[in-house]
Amino acid sequence: MADASTPPPKMTVAELEAFLEQEFPQVFGAGKLYHVEDVAHRFARMRCRYDPGQLRPGGTISGPTMMTLADTGLYVAILASIGPVGLAVTTNLNVNFLKKPAPRDLIAECRLVKLGKRLAVGEVAIWSDGEGEELVAHATGTYSIPPER
Amino acid sequence: MADASTPPPKMTVAELEAFLEQEFPQVFGAGKLYHVEDVAHRFARMRCRYDPGQLRPGGTISGPTMMTLADTGLYVAILASIGPVGLAVTTNLNVNFLKKPAPRDLIAECRLVKLGKRLAVGEVAIWSDGEGEELVAHATGTYSIPPER
Amino acid sequence: MADASTPPPKMTVAELEAFLEQEFPQVFGAGKLYHVEDVAHRFARMRCRYDPGQLRPGGTISGPTMMTLADTGLYVAILASIGPVGLAVTTNLNVNFLKKPAPRDLIAECRLVKLGKRLAVGEVAIWSDGEGEELVAHATGTYSIPPER
Amino acid sequence: MADASTPPPKMTVAELEAFLEQEFPQVFGAGKLYHVEDVAHRFARMRCRYDPGQLRPGGTISGPTMMTLADTGLYVAILASIGPVGLAVTTNLNVNFLKKPAPRDLIAECRLVKLGKRLAVGEVAIWSDGEGEELVAHATGTYSIPPER
Repeated sequence: MADASTPPPKMTVAELEAFLEQEFPQVFGAGKLYHVEDVAHRFARMRCRYDPGQLRPGGTISGPTMMTLADTGLYVAILASIGPVGLAVTTNLNVNFLKKPAPRDLIAECRLVKLGKRLAVGEVAIWSDGEGEELVAHATGTYSIPPER
Repeated sequence: MADASTPPPKMTVAELEAFLEQEFPQVFGAGKLYHVEDVAHRFARMRCRYDPGQLRPGGTISGPTMMTLADTGLYVAILASIGPVGLAVTTNLNVNFLKKPAPRDLIAECRLVKLGKRLAVGEVAIWSDGEGEELVAHATGTYSIPPER
Repeated sequence: MADASTPPPKMTVAELEAFLEQEFPQVFGAGKLYHVEDVAHRFARMRCRYDPGQLRPGGTISGPTMMTLADTGLYVAILASIGPVGLAVTTNLNVNFLKKPAPRDLIAECRLVKLGKRLAVGEVAIWSDGEGEELVAHATGTYSIPPER
Repeated sequence: MADASTPPPKMTVAELEAFLEQEFPQVFGAGKLYHVEDVAHRFARMRCRYDPGQLRPGGTISGPTMMTLADTGLYVAILASIGPVGLAVTTNLNVNFLKKPAPRDLIAECRLVKLGKRLAVGEVAIWSDGEGEELVAHATGTYSIPPER
């Protein structure tokens, strides 16, 4: 995908983490579990560190933890593609929960399948780090991009 | 809907809150924001109390707060309909975010549109308490019901 | 819902059927199976007549038949609410198939849960006419409304 | 993906087309527009030939055409993975329409992200053949697999 025609990302991982820490301190603030690992044009890879506090009965990581990871990951992919100009708003998030996550870090790869002027749409694959290729969740999200950018 | 052919709920609000407090202490434990207000066969009405700690920049209530409300509300509607026999597992949650919530309590009405032996499907309407009829979010969810019940 | 504050529909059933017959002759043309039965502000009730040609093996009505009914019904609800000014475009359709339809007419009740300037979102309940209250499918759809209206 | 650990498909393209022609003659029968181009374990690539009869006003290919392509493609990927033993039933189909298709063949690549005993979940990327990499639609689908297989 990173061929000559792909533009570079408009924000680095460090710039994104600084931006997110300021804008979403509850998710990305001090002691945060959610991290940006890599970005490219229309792409972000996120990590959610394992923390026993997220656990549901039976030892599984909660659905909201995975939904937050998918939603913030697509938001990061949009920021990486268009820069911090105008905040995109989530209009739809659809999550399929595929198997019980292991008590491990979660990795999410987020790709935009559309990046228009008014709408961006992306998909997210989430798996347990070190547990093989089977996904624990798959999501799609739609974001409304403010017209004034 | 509550005509003569509608069976009564299998758990009362008090029984459901006690069950949830034990099973999901992070969501329904002491100082909890999420409450069961009413249940019937295939129905639950939930309340999420307003708390500034949920706020995102711009004063809006976070998406994960609304997703948690929708998910737990459908789970409560299933428990009210079949009792605490075998834990249903969320397999899909699809949320449309319709407008920015006011800094107020959220109310969710959750109705099961299918209650089968293996699958339950429901829909959720969420609005800001005291802000009129316009929904702030609408969700649908699918739950896998364990075969051994 | 039809209280004093609800505006009347901007198109009648007859006007809608004439409009649809011209714009979508393959769906609403001569010998058509899809019909508008009733409309109100933010609402449409549709009927899809039973026809053995729609049948899949096992006697069930095809998924695309139900998806077309849901999609056109929400489109009709938008037209009834804002008039034939600028064509709305479907950006998302999410359908839950709940049970095998009977070999009968399908009825769809379509309600808009959001009617904004740029986006409309609605939900659809579909059942087999004369087969009781259990839904055969439930759908949600999102429509982009052209800015120039 | 086709590494040493990937099992071969359980049906060939020719076997699948013969099966589909018999089971779904309205979609895959004589003069059919829908074709299986390639399969692998958990994968199918489909083609929908361009035909002016599918056109909607404005020259676009209809939403139901794309929904049928996504739904049948995931069904083919399941057949290719488990063989023709017990018919899978679509329980959910979620389609994001991303841009207006060109008047050309549509190509769909369908991948299963989960293949369990009771549920299969897949995603579909659809684009216009010869029009570059931008998707015209993206879909996810869930299928219930009969327990008696």
